Amino acid sequence: MEVLFLNLKEVTNILKMDIALKAVEKAFYEKGMGRVIMPPKVYLFYEKYQGDIRVMPSYLPTYEISGVKVVNVHPNNPLKYKLPSVMATIILISPKNGAPLAILDGTAITNIRTGAAGGIATKYLARKNASTLSLIGAGVQAETQLLAIVRVRKIKQVKIYDINMKIAKKFQKKFEPQLKIPIIICSSIEECVKDADIISTQTPVREPIIKAEWIKPGAHINAIGADAPGKEELDWEILKKGKVYVDDWEQASHSGEINVPLEKGIIKKEDIKGEIGEVICGKIPGRETEEEITIFDSTGLGIQDLVCAYQVYKIAKKKKIGKKITLF
Amino acid sequence: MEVLFLNLKEVTNILKMDIALKAVEKAFYEKGMGRVIMPPKVYLFYEKYQGDIRVMPSYLPTYEISGVKVVNVHPNNPLKYKLPSVMATIILISPKNGAPLAILDGTAITNIRTGAAGGIATKYLARKNASTLSLIGAGVQAETQLLAIVRVRKIKQVKIYDINMKIAKKFQKKFEPQLKIPIIICSSIEECVKDADIISTQTPVREPIIKAEWIKPGAHINAIGADAPGKEELDWEILKKGKVYVDDWEQASHSGEINVPLEKGIIKKEDIKGEIGEVICGKIPGRETEEEITIFDSTGLGIQDLVCAYQVYKIAKKKKIGKKITLF
Repeated sequence: MEVLFLNLKEVTNILKMDIALKAVEKAFYEKGMGRVIMPPKVYLFYEKYQGDIRVMPSYLPTYEISGVKVVNVHPNNPLKYKLPSVMATIILISPKNGAPLAILDGTAITNIRTGAAGGIATKYLARKNASTLSLIGAGVQAETQLLAIVRVRKIKQVKIYDINMKIAKKFQKKFEPQLKIPIIICSSIEECVKDADIISTQTPVREPIIKAEWIKPGAHINAIGADAPGKEELDWEILKKGKVYVDDWEQASHSGEINVPLEKGIIKKEDIKGEIGEVICGKIPGRETEEEITIFDSTGLGIQDLVCAYQVYKIAKKKKIGKKITLF
Repeated sequence: MEVLFLNLKEVTNILKMDIALKAVEKAFYEKGMGRVIMPPKVYLFYEKYQGDIRVMPSYLPTYEISGVKVVNVHPNNPLKYKLPSVMATIILISPKNGAPLAILDGTAITNIRTGAAGGIATKYLARKNASTLSLIGAGVQAETQLLAIVRVRKIKQVKIYDINMKIAKKFQKKFEPQLKIPIIICSSIEECVKDADIISTQTPVREPIIKAEWIKPGAHINAIGADAPGKEELDWEILKKGKVYVDDWEQASHSGEINVPLEKGIIKKEDIKGEIGEVICGKIPGRETEEEITIFDSTGLGIQDLVCAYQVYKIAKKKKIGKKITLF
């Protein structure tokens, strides 16, 4: 039996943002329809090395595809090993017979599908005429948020803030010519988010850095950074006055933007409007007025990786990309 | 970054039973010492296809190795797809930086490590002078049980029973010349287990097939077959009068040989003597008399796969076996 092996370069060449956006929208739709099998992520903690892995199995019966992503988080990697902090491997599995179909590097997929989630949330929740984007944190997640959001709204101006000004400058240099949109580097978070129609936060902070009074009426916020218990980026006031949507209730309540205020009783389950998938398939309303503030709490779902990996696999097979390896 | 890819043939050539026995003994020892990180298996059920996958992440800090096994169970595979019912893939991961070190076919490892577990349990629990072995079920699990048990006890006679006589004959033809031990095909389970010093059961049945009155005093039983809720092979009476050891309490109580009688209240947690790892590291006694009956309830642990895969990886690296694949 043969399995198709696809490395980071091959995956990156195939998985353009347009493909990822469509794929992630489908995954969220399936989730909204209740047709997804996705047990909670399993964590293995390597305490001695201040790192962990997360194992994410999932199954989409509609598309007859299943898979497992294994992804690590080792913040010391860049300095200590010259390796990325986050690396991932995805095994695609046929639900029909359990055979592995493909093994893909999942590092690029992880980044792109996270951007695509922000893009899809923006598509369904931001004002139709939203035209200014604020990015807090200028790392790889900011890149994919930008690439996704410019595809769902006509963005005329981008502001960016990073604690490390050099990274923000590098970001500007890379994307201003590419997208032909002015990118303004800000020296404070307040300056960056003030007046923005769309805000995307992708930082590893563990306390709110975005204040409620800075957010203009009608804004949409993608809260991307929080992905573990204790992590949060937004002032609780924002969550209290805005309409909050999550990607997955279980995961978000445990490790998403809402986990801390929920645990402290600042907000309650009833304060969360629902899952983005429910908005997509029309079960619950999204934005209803031009003035309300909408928030998308993104924690990252195994099904996002799964649909993207499946798209990559199908295209690679058709175009004969990748290495076929004999398993047995 | 490069990852080492090892297929079934390469793994099989490296993982001889002696290596697997040593590795699994170490894994059980670590378990007994409480130095193992191994969350419960996660199941994904493909109801439409009467199959499932189990995802098994684990970490052995002592050996600084971690990994994830993905293994399916699709009983209809041989007839429908000419594929094995059980196939597995193992990703070996460095706990230091979370990078994948190797991707191995785990199908052979699954079979061999299950045999090795039976072998190690036999080593610690069977009478020293045990010399007759009874195998119930003549499939691939019987092969590895046999190969393991002949390495820990001086076996002079093997009896085998299978519901399909042809499979038993094939088994005899394969192993009698290889091991130079007489293998007797039995036409009933009673005939097969009566007078046996060691009994190994590896069938997929869901109700007891081994009666208590057939078991001779001083016998040791490896109960291998039960690996899911509702499955069992042994008369409850055997579990009540014998000394029962498990590989992992959580897993065995949920899906091992003891799961049904435990659920029905026939036996209680206090009736289980403990885990085989605790016997190996001297925390609890194993066999204490020549007359008592000992039972090992094997469910199969992720750490068994992990140590075996790690041994294979180390030997393959040294001998330059396998394919190096560029991930990124």
